[in-house]
Amino acid sequence: MPDFSLSKKDFKQQSAELTEGLLEAQFELRKAGKGPVLLLISGNDLAGKAEVIHTFYAWLDNRFLNTRAFVLPQGIEKRMPRMWRYWRSLPPAGQLGFYLGSWYHQPLMSFSRGNLSANAFKQQMEDILRFEKLLSDEGAVVLKVWLHISPDGKAVANSADQRHYQDTIAMREWGDFSRADYDKVRVAAQQMIDLTSTDQAPWVRIPSHDPRYRDIQIAKLLLQAMRQHLDSAPSSAHAATHHQSFLPGSVDRLHNVDYSAKLEKDDYQDQLEHYQNQLQELVHHPRFARRSLLLVFEGTDAAGKGGTIRRITQCLDPRYLRVHGTRAPTEEERTQPYLMRFWKRIPAPGTVVVFDRSYYGRVLVERVEGFCSAADWQRAYGEINDFEQQLKQSNTLVIKFWLAITEGEQLARFQAREASPLKRHKLTEEDWRNRQQWSTYQKAINDMLEFTDTKHAPWHVIAAEDKRHARIQALKIVCDSLRSALK
Amino acid sequence: MPDFSLSKKDFKQQSAELTEGLLEAQFELRKAGKGPVLLLISGNDLAGKAEVIHTFYAWLDNRFLNTRAFVLPQGIEKRMPRMWRYWRSLPPAGQLGFYLGSWYHQPLMSFSRGNLSANAFKQQMEDILRFEKLLSDEGAVVLKVWLHISPDGKAVANSADQRHYQDTIAMREWGDFSRADYDKVRVAAQQMIDLTSTDQAPWVRIPSHDPRYRDIQIAKLLLQAMRQHLDSAPSSAHAATHHQSFLPGSVDRLHNVDYSAKLEKDDYQDQLEHYQNQLQELVHHPRFARRSLLLVFEGTDAAGKGGTIRRITQCLDPRYLRVHGTRAPTEEERTQPYLMRFWKRIPAPGTVVVFDRSYYGRVLVERVEGFCSAADWQRAYGEINDFEQQLKQSNTLVIKFWLAITEGEQLARFQAREASPLKRHKLTEEDWRNRQQWSTYQKAINDMLEFTDTKHAPWHVIAAEDKRHARIQALKIVCDSLRSALK
Repeated sequence: MPDFSLSKKDFKQQSAELTEGLLEAQFELRKAGKGPVLLLISGNDLAGKAEVIHTFYAWLDNRFLNTRAFVLPQGIEKRMPRMWRYWRSLPPAGQLGFYLGSWYHQPLMSFSRGNLSANAFKQQMEDILRFEKLLSDEGAVVLKVWLHISPDGKAVANSADQRHYQDTIAMREWGDFSRADYDKVRVAAQQMIDLTSTDQAPWVRIPSHDPRYRDIQIAKLLLQAMRQHLDSAPSSAHAATHHQSFLPGSVDRLHNVDYSAKLEKDDYQDQLEHYQNQLQELVHHPRFARRSLLLVFEGTDAAGKGGTIRRITQCLDPRYLRVHGTRAPTEEERTQPYLMRFWKRIPAPGTVVVFDRSYYGRVLVERVEGFCSAADWQRAYGEINDFEQQLKQSNTLVIKFWLAITEGEQLARFQAREASPLKRHKLTEEDWRNRQQWSTYQKAINDMLEFTDTKHAPWHVIAAEDKRHARIQALKIVCDSLRSALK
Repeated sequence: MPDFSLSKKDFKQQSAELTEGLLEAQFELRKAGKGPVLLLISGNDLAGKAEVIHTFYAWLDNRFLNTRAFVLPQGIEKRMPRMWRYWRSLPPAGQLGFYLGSWYHQPLMSFSRGNLSANAFKQQMEDILRFEKLLSDEGAVVLKVWLHISPDGKAVANSADQRHYQDTIAMREWGDFSRADYDKVRVAAQQMIDLTSTDQAPWVRIPSHDPRYRDIQIAKLLLQAMRQHLDSAPSSAHAATHHQSFLPGSVDRLHNVDYSAKLEKDDYQDQLEHYQNQLQELVHHPRFARRSLLLVFEGTDAAGKGGTIRRITQCLDPRYLRVHGTRAPTEEERTQPYLMRFWKRIPAPGTVVVFDRSYYGRVLVERVEGFCSAADWQRAYGEINDFEQQLKQSNTLVIKFWLAITEGEQLARFQAREASPLKRHKLTEEDWRNRQQWSTYQKAINDMLEFTDTKHAPWHVIAAEDKRHARIQALKIVCDSLRSALK
């Protein structure tokens, strides 16, 4: 049996070599703007999880290290989707992230304490797999180590390197820790490891009796992963060569829209007042305090998204409302996973968020203009469905609108905009360019409507040839959906 | 007496004209990347504060409006500097920010309820004046309106435009509202207005019995301010022509450093262990849970900041520690007030933040390289002192280090870095360029040391010619300062 230990002398020599390599790789990673490398450190208590991070803080360039420590969810975190706090805290491109109590911590604790059924635990592990796959597809590297020691932890307790803070901090999370607890955690951890070891992000078990051996092993693993990451092609190019063949949708939903739908002015005024009053009442319903509302507005250029949105926001309290206009990602946002900036903007309980254009840009403009690879937009359908499902699970009602107008009507509106001082700023060169690609966009829109029209977040395609009709339709749908959600 | 009201017809006509102008100005503001325009809406309850914002949401392009509503501080906000939550929420350049319950809300409430002394109230008003002056100097526009109605609020209650939500929401903050309360608020508000009406950001009182009159008045005010803002020169150029003559410092503190200070290896090892243990104990002191520590490291290139920082962070728990390497601001950060990104990174209670380079870049590299105007870096001394004082007041201990080496030693270290695979990534073209400007930098450093060496945040200039000496000095100062702060 190997003894999984290392002499002081060997440690000194190996750590000097590894530090050199790690510093160099850290520098290159940043220079190349590669996706971040995430090191998840789990393991038995007293195995030295925080100690490992200490070692890396001593070896590496501190300025580009990000340590994230998650305990059980607190305050608002309890009422947001489980993955929200992890999405918000992803490290910047080119940097390292060390995770103590990563996304595995909460399900592992709950399951081993009997507060989570085996089925629910399995479900959460699957959610995590999808999250890690997305990270990996978006160019991040996920490394997962499990620090293993025997139940009494004596090997570490006697180690010369054991640090003072360990006594005071290591036990904060778990509280009293008995032999029985240890066994439960061991069983749960084994299941966790079995369920979530993938080719891209396998669990690596590190014998951790000897801190020197432990830290050198992890450093080797990290260095190897960083070098591989540096040698790999850019994630999108890489993915492009491996994507499965894409089967376009088969339904032309835009063709089935009744563009002749109309509403007279008097009817419009009556119904506008009626539904605005209704919406006001609905968001003041006591039950809405624990719910939230996400309205996604997409549509043909000049279809009247802004005007429709205003008819809805007019009757909402600006303090509990945010309207986000989605534009091209900033330089910084382009280096992050695509959905990150939207995750940061999801509504808190009791509030309404409106996206004027949204994450659907990935399968519309980014697809059509080639701003991302085919593999990127093709996997986006599933990622978006997953995102919306998580919102639904945490009590957010997601309502999505496509405002549709005909090619002729768009031309008329563009021309009217050019003539109006109030509206000319809305028209750009890009709008005219997009118009050239009408049929390509139609395909992309139909695919989107087909692949992301889910039970938990259905699409509402609204004829917007007549603005009054579109506005009332949207208001009515918001009211009806909200009313039935609050029942 | 004017009746401060407006007929429906007049309102319709004026609002159409104003909307056109506002939309145009909104568009130009964004295009020009001008600093944001902040509209602070205060006033008696039932005067329609939220209603005003509603109107603007109906008139303007929603996507570039930001509404901030502040009630009394909650959770962590209570333990951070008062201005922290406002700094974090400043709207992006080119956009509008509407403030309900702005930075005036809390002092006004506390004072009128008798929970704040007249002196403390006055002090807080002065803090606010400095904050608003900074915003204005950094290119933002601050507009402050006070909505005025009679105590019974009947004029609004009878108004046809009164909206449903007002009944349910307007009273949330103030609770029961009596005639006596009204009088107290009136007196406090008058003092507030007297104390904080400046040329750059005067209070404008808006008679608000008639919502139509009220909204048109505010729209006119906003439009006028936006147009003036658009016509003004860029803030830095503008400020440059108006700055007062700058009197350089008179003390050559760098000259007085004893560069020969040294520490032998054995002494170093002993003291390192000694002080690291001490620091560990200090941050585990129960009283530290309510304090926090900000360490600022500045110094000559190659003076050994990173190594010194590592000796300190080695003994801190990474979970309660953040090390921020300060680099050139990103594109987005350049459009924000200079101190904003540092405000976002100040330590929470019980945690340690280390800045490896810091906001002092404003009076060092930005001054020397001309990245900002003379007026910008000249006012930065006062702004920084103010920032650090606010940190101090909210229980953050701020310790600042300048690591000093001689020109000859720097050259030797640069050459050594070039030769070392471990360190060559630390040396850039820029380092060599900076070296050319040695004497210009010396002046800037001496000015900084003279103008920002305050009682609440003193500078420690450390001879770093001998790395061991510098590291132990820094550790010792951190320990000594922290110990006396925790007494």
